[in-house]
Amino acid sequence: MYGIDVMTEHQVTRLDLDGNRLEVIDLKRSKSSHLSFDKLIIGTGARSRRIELPGSNGKNVFTLKNVQDGYDLKAFIDEKKPRRAVILGAGYISLEMCEAFVGRGLETWILYRRSLPAGNLDSEISERILKEVQDKGVRFVSNCNVASFSTNESGEVMAVESDRGLYRTDLVLMAMGVIPNTELARQAGVSLGKTGAIQVDSGQRTNVRHVFSAGDCCESLHLVSGQPVHAPLGDIANKQGRVAGENAAGGDATFHGIVGSLAFSVFDLEVASTGLSSRAAKAAGFDVESQVIEHDSKVGYMPGAKPITVKMVFDRKSGRLLGGQMVGEEGVARRINALAVALHQRMTVDEIARLDFAYAPPFSPTFDPILIAAEQASKKIG
Amino acid sequence: MYGIDVMTEHQVTRLDLDGNRLEVIDLKRSKSSHLSFDKLIIGTGARSRRIELPGSNGKNVFTLKNVQDGYDLKAFIDEKKPRRAVILGAGYISLEMCEAFVGRGLETWILYRRSLPAGNLDSEISERILKEVQDKGVRFVSNCNVASFSTNESGEVMAVESDRGLYRTDLVLMAMGVIPNTELARQAGVSLGKTGAIQVDSGQRTNVRHVFSAGDCCESLHLVSGQPVHAPLGDIANKQGRVAGENAAGGDATFHGIVGSLAFSVFDLEVASTGLSSRAAKAAGFDVESQVIEHDSKVGYMPGAKPITVKMVFDRKSGRLLGGQMVGEEGVARRINALAVALHQRMTVDEIARLDFAYAPPFSPTFDPILIAAEQASKKIG
Repeated sequence: MYGIDVMTEHQVTRLDLDGNRLEVIDLKRSKSSHLSFDKLIIGTGARSRRIELPGSNGKNVFTLKNVQDGYDLKAFIDEKKPRRAVILGAGYISLEMCEAFVGRGLETWILYRRSLPAGNLDSEISERILKEVQDKGVRFVSNCNVASFSTNESGEVMAVESDRGLYRTDLVLMAMGVIPNTELARQAGVSLGKTGAIQVDSGQRTNVRHVFSAGDCCESLHLVSGQPVHAPLGDIANKQGRVAGENAAGGDATFHGIVGSLAFSVFDLEVASTGLSSRAAKAAGFDVESQVIEHDSKVGYMPGAKPITVKMVFDRKSGRLLGGQMVGEEGVARRINALAVALHQRMTVDEIARLDFAYAPPFSPTFDPILIAAEQASKKIG
Repeated sequence: MYGIDVMTEHQVTRLDLDGNRLEVIDLKRSKSSHLSFDKLIIGTGARSRRIELPGSNGKNVFTLKNVQDGYDLKAFIDEKKPRRAVILGAGYISLEMCEAFVGRGLETWILYRRSLPAGNLDSEISERILKEVQDKGVRFVSNCNVASFSTNESGEVMAVESDRGLYRTDLVLMAMGVIPNTELARQAGVSLGKTGAIQVDSGQRTNVRHVFSAGDCCESLHLVSGQPVHAPLGDIANKQGRVAGENAAGGDATFHGIVGSLAFSVFDLEVASTGLSSRAAKAAGFDVESQVIEHDSKVGYMPGAKPITVKMVFDRKSGRLLGGQMVGEEGVARRINALAVALHQRMTVDEIARLDFAYAPPFSPTFDPILIAAEQASKKIG
């Protein structure tokens, strides 16, 4: 339809940015060839972070990055009927997968190097997540660093040895985040940022004039901190790709940056976050104050009303909102975007407290929990 | 706790703003007396709009404004077991009540003077509401003006006669909106606005130096149109009351105005709106353009994904957002507040299209329906 040649099962092995050509291997035919270009967009994505230890490549060790990973993991569970699973890491892939494992009847362990799950969120939110996964039968081992894998004669991992003890298992899932695929770019002279991902400007241009980058392999500008970050999320990649494509074709599109909005569910909880956590805001140099409230998700007499926790992070002097986090069983994920807009607009918590939000008992208490949190936060300014 | 004298069953019959006193009747003892004041807050609220015709005061004719009205209506249904109900009006009280009547097994008719229900919303939204109530068995009679009531010997209404025909009924609910209770204020020299409600400034001060007003009896400033409006909603009344109280006590609080956010549910639909409809925006003098899209409420493969309709109303030249309306079975009400923030901040549709919203398959497609609507809207600017 658009005259695009799509070459699957071809691996680029070298970029020549002076000669404007790629070295490509046709993986099916094991044949190498060259491909020339006028403009190049690097969209090499990211790969799962792995612990490389003897046993790491055992047949019962998995990562979950792409659809095939999912098929492989599902086939293993269907065929081998494992009884125990150990997940390394406690980000949202880990949390979503522990729910899936429990749903399949597996005794599920999470081993995590930090003290609380979802370590990028603040403790008020993470503690609620910990309670939820424990209530659902997941065993959470905090402050745990993997030392080695015990394998059987087939090379399968039988147990994970750590500084917190030995954990027998039939299955290991490494869910410790991703690292950007930047090897080709770096070797060809494309600059990486401090995050380790490819450095780009607001037009998705790299330091090399005719080379662009988009997606999980490159950085994004965080509009709250003003700093480039590595935020490998699908919607961001999609937006960056459109900008890179338009500009590679001679256009002048701009990717305006992110505020770090995300949501996920874990068992009966919804979790959502936007902007900076207290920890991230301090690291970015802000004078950080915060406010945590708990309030019903809708008017208390309505069926299904549930308490939700709202945390607002803001600048102590100006009251500027720096971030918001929420957790609860109901009415969390779709509430967060109002705060995302507030972050884009650099609003203060007292400005937020004045907002005219929709009130209806099936959906919100008279004052939305966001307004209540902002009102209380505004009293701490100064 | 706060030393406040609350005098229930006392009716104020006259305000004397020169003498700073009220004439009050103790309704229990039928005794009249005077009460003096330094500052006065008028919070006389609103009452249901009624059609005054022979039969209007029949025992089977109801309005629904306060809790007692609800008790009375429920008691009537419990005792008399009516089989048919006619609702006059089609705003959200009407729509919520037709759901309640159908739930109680009543054959329910809505007679409405306009062509589509929820006449303050635009037709793209109202048509979906009409389909929903009709699918659930409600008979909707459009463009219908009541001419008279046929009553029996007890004065009960047996049928509603209209220019669209005769509708037999066991019960009539008048749900045609409210009118502000301003008689006392007006007689005492307090100015009313064009809306017929009490005129106030941003400190809830009336034209009389020591007299304030708050709630359903007074106007609010609509921040999109810049015009005073009568917006009798609980959360607005609550906010105004705090400002009036603080200022009457010598403070300097400000009520910053509204953008007209509301949400309600009718059967399986959620409906939400903020800002101006196309019609209201045109009436306010804007050069109006709009964009309507339909999109899934979350990623299509997730259980429970439902199509939602989003309408954005914006200024044709500048692209400034003027209003947003949404309807769908899922994921509507809590989405609207992001647009409320955008209205407060006078954002344009292209600024909205760039927002970083939380993406997670259980809650949102890759691009939130709001972002899709804004993106498409931005192509119409100019």
